[in-house]
Amino acid sequence: MESRLNTLAALLPDEADAALIISQTNRRYLTEFVSSLGYLFVTKEGSFLLADSRYEEAAKKQAKGCSVILFSKLADTIKQLITEHKLKRILLECSAFTLTEAERIESIFNQAGAESVRSKTLDKLICDMRIIKTSSEIAKIRRAQHITEDSFNRTIKLIREGVTERELALDLEFRMRASGAESVSFDLIVLTGSKTSMPHGVPDDTRVKSGDFILFDIGATFEGYHSDMTRTVALGKVSSSQKRIYNTVLNAQLEALSAVREGVSCAEIDKAARSYIDNAGYQGLFGHSTGHGVGMDIHEAPSVSPNNEFILQSGMVITVEPGIYVPGKCGVRIEDMAVVTSDGCINLASLPKELIEL
Amino acid sequence: MESRLNTLAALLPDEADAALIISQTNRRYLTEFVSSLGYLFVTKEGSFLLADSRYEEAAKKQAKGCSVILFSKLADTIKQLITEHKLKRILLECSAFTLTEAERIESIFNQAGAESVRSKTLDKLICDMRIIKTSSEIAKIRRAQHITEDSFNRTIKLIREGVTERELALDLEFRMRASGAESVSFDLIVLTGSKTSMPHGVPDDTRVKSGDFILFDIGATFEGYHSDMTRTVALGKVSSSQKRIYNTVLNAQLEALSAVREGVSCAEIDKAARSYIDNAGYQGLFGHSTGHGVGMDIHEAPSVSPNNEFILQSGMVITVEPGIYVPGKCGVRIEDMAVVTSDGCINLASLPKELIEL
Repeated sequence: MESRLNTLAALLPDEADAALIISQTNRRYLTEFVSSLGYLFVTKEGSFLLADSRYEEAAKKQAKGCSVILFSKLADTIKQLITEHKLKRILLECSAFTLTEAERIESIFNQAGAESVRSKTLDKLICDMRIIKTSSEIAKIRRAQHITEDSFNRTIKLIREGVTERELALDLEFRMRASGAESVSFDLIVLTGSKTSMPHGVPDDTRVKSGDFILFDIGATFEGYHSDMTRTVALGKVSSSQKRIYNTVLNAQLEALSAVREGVSCAEIDKAARSYIDNAGYQGLFGHSTGHGVGMDIHEAPSVSPNNEFILQSGMVITVEPGIYVPGKCGVRIEDMAVVTSDGCINLASLPKELIEL
Repeated sequence: MESRLNTLAALLPDEADAALIISQTNRRYLTEFVSSLGYLFVTKEGSFLLADSRYEEAAKKQAKGCSVILFSKLADTIKQLITEHKLKRILLECSAFTLTEAERIESIFNQAGAESVRSKTLDKLICDMRIIKTSSEIAKIRRAQHITEDSFNRTIKLIREGVTERELALDLEFRMRASGAESVSFDLIVLTGSKTSMPHGVPDDTRVKSGDFILFDIGATFEGYHSDMTRTVALGKVSSSQKRIYNTVLNAQLEALSAVREGVSCAEIDKAARSYIDNAGYQGLFGHSTGHGVGMDIHEAPSVSPNNEFILQSGMVITVEPGIYVPGKCGVRIEDMAVVTSDGCINLASLPKELIEL
């Protein structure tokens, strides 16, 4: 199989003879090697990962498709590389370089007779590669999802009157990490009572009460890949209005999922969920997008939002997560991850979605 | 008390009539309000925090020294602010803006007839403010340290033959977070056996064996402030050569601590530890700096390193953490945090440092 670095090198535009990638995620994606710091030069003659001595052994063993060069003085090593390979114009990863770092690197380039190219080209090339997931990437997302579901099933057994959001979130994170998660995908969201109406709420010492929803928006990472799932459960019996909200969200989510397939636009997926919710009489209570891409970042392209005419292709992985939020009262969100296929999608979540009243 | 924002506004250079701060840490430091996203404009006429609707209530209640302006379309709100306050030249926080974000913001500025100033001035001004800690900041670091020590005392009771580095690290993190830590200060380092010789090692499934060191480099955060502590303990009796290494590191650390006081350079502190280790015959086995500043970032100014002639002032908080690392054999590091005072320092760690053989 051709390495990702070779693929990228072949796509470099004529305006540049090299590219410099520094973000942890893109370095990991391109080399499959994890490190907190590193400078990845992609040239038409080959790729070079500049690493410091603490990564010597691991980088040489694990980094794919590139030569590893150890540096102690970064500036000297970069200048040598520029001279040896006669580099003149080097594309920067503009989404990752801060102004301070860019200035520092450009001064090194200049001392060696090269200059930087600040354009969106490089970020766009890598984004276009990452947006389509290979089967081995999907397998990792699936592992992350499996850890999430397994931990969720154990944690919800703790739900009773008086348990706090924070206790549930902490228990869940501990279970995920003890069962092989590299980390959590994001600060886990566990909300109850009226706080369920806040899409960006943060777990605190609010206690679960009977008749309330408990909303879990959770995920684990496995070998760099994220999972993302939302389930809303209840303690005891909920009111008929709560049940109607729940079932409306569930049906809207099923509508959106059944619209997912290669060739359909993100806006159409969003519309499938949104119009179901609007038609059920909940206009204005679904205030966020229907979903987003997920992979090595928890939020990545494409955005599944009302105005995004981007067309889905096979191998993309998106979330589908409509919700209804009644301020001061309650909220429900239900979220799965779906792999886009030529005739539909593969749902990566396996947990049931009918309302669970514990 | 004058707000931090007023202090900063008074320090703005003549070349600019405003500054824009976007990093989470500096926004939190200046306003004492926590949010994942926000645009903080500091002008000579007052400061303005642009926040989105999810922070409406909290920002208005908690953000100090500034007016909160809610935005839905960021560009429109920024343009209005520029026009209303006749802003012409706006300093950017160059350590936080990526090239992509800077370009986007500058295009908004230009549309409103203003321009950006890319210089290190703003970062330097804020760094100079943050480097001296107030008593309330020190109280928060102390709380973080207290949580760290208390959790450490409980976790070391689990040390026995066969327990893994990962199990100890996970136990420690969950004790910290269950006892009030906002988060961990960094990915906790728990290493044993020959892995203790790696200053940047990562906990894995390596098991503790009798006669081995177990090195803990750990810390918690409390209300945004970090603690940082290293202790090296042993399971069972260690060899005389291990004991000699341990005591050399301990004495080197005590030498460095006793050198800390206002008016002394960072290089002198480093030298106190380093020359003790070198004179004891361990030349070349202490490969990192003696310490670093700590506060809202786990690593901040000043660096306590061999070539840093920066002079310590009262109210700075630094770590003092010499170590000896024998490749393939073992390593020892001992670390406390110290507040610089006019005649010495206050050690924020209270745990004993004599070798504990469990």
